Amino acid sequence: MIAGVIGAAGYAGAEIVRILSRHPKVDSLLASSTSYEGKPVSEIYPNFIDCVDTILENSEALIANSGIVFGALPHGVGEVFAAKCFERGIPYIDMSADFRFDDDEETYKAWYGKTYQFPELHKKSVYGLPELNRGKIQAAGNKSVIIGNPGCYPTAASLAAFPALALGLYGGGTIIIDAASGITGGGREPMRAYHFPECSDSMSPYKVGAHRHTPEISRNFSFMEKVNPKARPLIFTPHLAPMNRGILSTIYIPLSDEWKCEAAAAQPRPPSAEIQEKTARIRKLYADFYQREKFVRVLPEGILPATGRVRLSNFCDIAVQIDQNGANLIVISAIDNMVKGAAGQAVQNMNIIFGFEEDCGLDTVPAMF
Amino acid sequence: MIAGVIGAAGYAGAEIVRILSRHPKVDSLLASSTSYEGKPVSEIYPNFIDCVDTILENSEALIANSGIVFGALPHGVGEVFAAKCFERGIPYIDMSADFRFDDDEETYKAWYGKTYQFPELHKKSVYGLPELNRGKIQAAGNKSVIIGNPGCYPTAASLAAFPALALGLYGGGTIIIDAASGITGGGREPMRAYHFPECSDSMSPYKVGAHRHTPEISRNFSFMEKVNPKARPLIFTPHLAPMNRGILSTIYIPLSDEWKCEAAAAQPRPPSAEIQEKTARIRKLYADFYQREKFVRVLPEGILPATGRVRLSNFCDIAVQIDQNGANLIVISAIDNMVKGAAGQAVQNMNIIFGFEEDCGLDTVPAMF
Amino acid sequence: MIAGVIGAAGYAGAEIVRILSRHPKVDSLLASSTSYEGKPVSEIYPNFIDCVDTILENSEALIANSGIVFGALPHGVGEVFAAKCFERGIPYIDMSADFRFDDDEETYKAWYGKTYQFPELHKKSVYGLPELNRGKIQAAGNKSVIIGNPGCYPTAASLAAFPALALGLYGGGTIIIDAASGITGGGREPMRAYHFPECSDSMSPYKVGAHRHTPEISRNFSFMEKVNPKARPLIFTPHLAPMNRGILSTIYIPLSDEWKCEAAAAQPRPPSAEIQEKTARIRKLYADFYQREKFVRVLPEGILPATGRVRLSNFCDIAVQIDQNGANLIVISAIDNMVKGAAGQAVQNMNIIFGFEEDCGLDTVPAMF
Amino acid sequence: MIAGVIGAAGYAGAEIVRILSRHPKVDSLLASSTSYEGKPVSEIYPNFIDCVDTILENSEALIANSGIVFGALPHGVGEVFAAKCFERGIPYIDMSADFRFDDDEETYKAWYGKTYQFPELHKKSVYGLPELNRGKIQAAGNKSVIIGNPGCYPTAASLAAFPALALGLYGGGTIIIDAASGITGGGREPMRAYHFPECSDSMSPYKVGAHRHTPEISRNFSFMEKVNPKARPLIFTPHLAPMNRGILSTIYIPLSDEWKCEAAAAQPRPPSAEIQEKTARIRKLYADFYQREKFVRVLPEGILPATGRVRLSNFCDIAVQIDQNGANLIVISAIDNMVKGAAGQAVQNMNIIFGFEEDCGLDTVPAMF
Repeated sequence: MIAGVIGAAGYAGAEIVRILSRHPKVDSLLASSTSYEGKPVSEIYPNFIDCVDTILENSEALIANSGIVFGALPHGVGEVFAAKCFERGIPYIDMSADFRFDDDEETYKAWYGKTYQFPELHKKSVYGLPELNRGKIQAAGNKSVIIGNPGCYPTAASLAAFPALALGLYGGGTIIIDAASGITGGGREPMRAYHFPECSDSMSPYKVGAHRHTPEISRNFSFMEKVNPKARPLIFTPHLAPMNRGILSTIYIPLSDEWKCEAAAAQPRPPSAEIQEKTARIRKLYADFYQREKFVRVLPEGILPATGRVRLSNFCDIAVQIDQNGANLIVISAIDNMVKGAAGQAVQNMNIIFGFEEDCGLDTVPAMF
Repeated sequence: MIAGVIGAAGYAGAEIVRILSRHPKVDSLLASSTSYEGKPVSEIYPNFIDCVDTILENSEALIANSGIVFGALPHGVGEVFAAKCFERGIPYIDMSADFRFDDDEETYKAWYGKTYQFPELHKKSVYGLPELNRGKIQAAGNKSVIIGNPGCYPTAASLAAFPALALGLYGGGTIIIDAASGITGGGREPMRAYHFPECSDSMSPYKVGAHRHTPEISRNFSFMEKVNPKARPLIFTPHLAPMNRGILSTIYIPLSDEWKCEAAAAQPRPPSAEIQEKTARIRKLYADFYQREKFVRVLPEGILPATGRVRLSNFCDIAVQIDQNGANLIVISAIDNMVKGAAGQAVQNMNIIFGFEEDCGLDTVPAMF
Repeated sequence: MIAGVIGAAGYAGAEIVRILSRHPKVDSLLASSTSYEGKPVSEIYPNFIDCVDTILENSEALIANSGIVFGALPHGVGEVFAAKCFERGIPYIDMSADFRFDDDEETYKAWYGKTYQFPELHKKSVYGLPELNRGKIQAAGNKSVIIGNPGCYPTAASLAAFPALALGLYGGGTIIIDAASGITGGGREPMRAYHFPECSDSMSPYKVGAHRHTPEISRNFSFMEKVNPKARPLIFTPHLAPMNRGILSTIYIPLSDEWKCEAAAAQPRPPSAEIQEKTARIRKLYADFYQREKFVRVLPEGILPATGRVRLSNFCDIAVQIDQNGANLIVISAIDNMVKGAAGQAVQNMNIIFGFEEDCGLDTVPAMF
Repeated sequence: MIAGVIGAAGYAGAEIVRILSRHPKVDSLLASSTSYEGKPVSEIYPNFIDCVDTILENSEALIANSGIVFGALPHGVGEVFAAKCFERGIPYIDMSADFRFDDDEETYKAWYGKTYQFPELHKKSVYGLPELNRGKIQAAGNKSVIIGNPGCYPTAASLAAFPALALGLYGGGTIIIDAASGITGGGREPMRAYHFPECSDSMSPYKVGAHRHTPEISRNFSFMEKVNPKARPLIFTPHLAPMNRGILSTIYIPLSDEWKCEAAAAQPRPPSAEIQEKTARIRKLYADFYQREKFVRVLPEGILPATGRVRLSNFCDIAVQIDQNGANLIVISAIDNMVKGAAGQAVQNMNIIFGFEEDCGLDTVPAMF
């Protein structure tokens, strides 16, 4: 198969190139970049020297010669490529937010400030979170399909919350997602916030109460929620952590009455036996829920997620714990924002579309450092 | 004045030594360490060469010759020194958790697994958070007093939440504190979790739903809370971030009806005008609340706390934002865990006890990197 | 094939396990550890969960069932395993310094303070730097052979210097190797020097003029040196850099008269045209020298090595530049100390011994971050 | 006194502001910036909030009202300010390279590509390395003087080499300086090379054999060199290390016959008794040489410089060791590139000019992390 990556000079695009260059089913790899057309991709990314010899070409030519196209472009500029791929009858996997909201153009517009150019395409697109939508992605088959590849934070948050929402652990009320991302999440363009001396050895929040991934997370939760699918209040606070890769997501989910534990009378006390016992049951429910998922690891008791342990892999690691008050479930998830949070998940979607093994080209053992 | 530091080989002790060595009111500095008795402190910390020439001595001699003593010791071993200082009529500032719970021995025992050796001392001790307890610390005067110096996380969380609790912004319900600490918080002893390759370039939670600072935070909140001082459910989740210094604390406080804003009908929307207007009013309330505090900076609109901006200073930076649902106040605070979270606050307490300017020896301009 | 790793709980051992677990020719993977016998390796390294299900067993059993054995043990304890493998007629690849000095026991003893237990084995062992010794490693064939896997610094330094020494660029005199290593080079055991707050955001030298890799580098140089193979004065200074992986080696090689350039009359001047032209010729010579080597990349003009660009790969990146005086060649090399500097090179040796493609299981595209 | 800082929005300028804001002799602090005129400096550097309330003004007004002016500007644009200050009869301390070459305009032009606008000023300017030029700086007195504040690398290298050059330890031949700098050395403007994901967790050289600090180092050495002051071949290789502050400089100086030690016959051996004894003597010579210098610390045996141990201080830490061949002296120095390598040294020069204590405002105890 010939795979094409539009926007290969950006971090997400280059990461797709890195993964596809060793994908057993990809015979040939095309890549394009407006800024660097005509140059070898290894000139932009010298780590690719002797590994990837692709020359950056024109997007038109790329689409004409590819069997699948990945669009790693800023929000609002990829629809035209999606349209061309759709016309040619080949899958288009979009890395921007453009196809993450189906036909809810209003929400997209409210957060991204743009309207749909090709509204009809959005009715046919599929939100590419395999653990939620595998059926729809598969159904698309080897034919024309547009995948809205999920955002990094929404991937980490959704996988962490889905079992709680789907299995009735959630009792209603505000779900809080507190997350920290590595600096690659900010992309390749040098900006003051990502200038080493400004962000190294420091931790800070950003876009508090106003991050664009909030509506995407909310949508995802609504697909799972049994209690009250209409109202799903959630708060999402992103932080910047001084590391390259990774998202660590800590989520607070109010428990349903069935799962609540008795709290200590007045002052806080270490977790009670009831709390630990119900936590163990929830861990088991989570493990069962994801039993057939290759890329979700529900960690055994005593091990908590660390972004350093999913480095360069497509894994999402998850741990659960009822808080010492007995009223909330704390779920923690860790992903590599560039892999499961972007390029890896895109390749996972490609694998599903073409009926390859889902971990084909993605069976990396996470590097421990 | 002669100041003595017991346990000067540990990070907190050495940081007190660093600050006191340039304190205008400290004429002489004594230090002790069981492990390194007889050695110059600059042999343990070569950064002190030509700056601090103190020889580590015996704790007994140190207490006999000091006008104030700082105990930077593990939990459960400092009471005996507190007792000796009390007897000698000199202040003792305890850096461990031993004197943070007054006479609530039960809570102390539940979390620290130890009982009080000298129960009567705990009735006389003062919890040394100046922004909460300045009166009591002052009242102690230049005489005998035992200060329980606050924990690092409780300092960051309490300063962030106090105005909301005191001014009726809080409407009841669970308060969630999600915090990240630099690795110095783990102390000087090499351990696998703090081994560079294990924690560098990675982010992870620890002691989820079970950290010892939970009851201390809860106590602090109860002093401020107007709504329902008996029941104060809170969740505290600490994380380890790959940086040396700093605590970044993100706190979710359910708003009282008066402060709630109307939420978007169905899907999340960017913050409404009402949200932004009420956020501005709350920011003003926070600024007023802390107007006379030298070490609390309520940041202007558009600036969010970053641990890198309080580095090496005694400041606590705070920002507020109502979330896009309009139902919760998000408060973010940043401190240097080794300064305002430990050694700096201890020196601030000393300044108050002796009637020095509160920022004497602590007027460091934070290094920007 | 069944491969066994003795000492799999250490960093080097675990890295071999990580690589072998995805090696196309390795059917089964055995691992042993004295400290953790009976436990799954994924309990020690949770990044291995769902990826590597090996249970740590006894070294005896491991040797009995393996077709090749890797010994990732401290210096001086692996000879007995080497002897057993030799007896069984299977290859043994030793990661310690024990088999890096052939029969020069005196040098080994001078630096490592130990004598040989099985002197005859050392006569038969091969120093496993494929770019130097491929013939001898191959000759060993699929039979019994003991490989002394090179040290990390010697690998980086030797590959950088070999062409200069072999092609007559070196004119005699002291060769200086100034190198910096990531902290994984210090191994898995927590020590103060590698405690995050002690080494993060700091740079320092260690073992100045006295590092054990000095004689190993000297030996390697002597195999190549044409000028004066008896006297090969060299200085090697290692540094610790605040990063996980990587060795950056900067080497100063006095040029032979043929290659010297005319210097600026008095004060230094930017590189002359002659310097740049001869540098280009040397670059070409280097590229030709390593043309058939899969793992050495002589970088094109304008690109300098960075450890971040060989991350997790078996590559050694090299650049050359004549200094502005025209009298010395500066050669810079970058490797991943855990891969080409340890585990990857060991697997490369295995591939050569068994006649596999040399990059089998090692064709990783370096991650750009 | 009123001090003014032109170019206060850059890192060097802001660091001068940070130091001067707590300087006991500075009554008032003015600052200017072309880009941010009219804004409070604390808007550019929020760490300054509540600490430094200076409003960025116009350079003309600043010069008119200051008793001393610091110019923290790019090369080639500060001469005009120097001229104005000279005319007004107030000291001007220039942080660029413009006044580091006295009347050697040819060298300046060769490396910086610019000519002198006011050649006569350069005859009157003084190179502001106090440990070399204190007399001349003092002689300038409280009157008009232009100081060329040294570069960061030249400061670290010169202080390390001076005693060897001045005391006859150096025997002629090439001196090699291998140095690594933290990323603040690259300034405040975001650039790809300093974008966190590009430089974090990586080590790389830059401008190999062609860095502009080479001629400055060469000049400094020539002032000290006894052997052959005309020819002073040196090589300087700068590297970028993933840390905020600090320069670690490792220097290789060929020893004079008097100081050479007998080398091991053939293969390298650990340092001989003679080497260790002569090293101890040289350490003593170094300590004596710098005995009266407040900011140079010759470290005791067994302690090597680390940039983390001079953090935020004006210290230069130095250690010496003869290499195991006995023919070269290895000198290692560590400074904080932003303090002794820039802003701190500038303030030290101010102190000397005005006859203040030389460590006035600079007696910071280095933070250990």
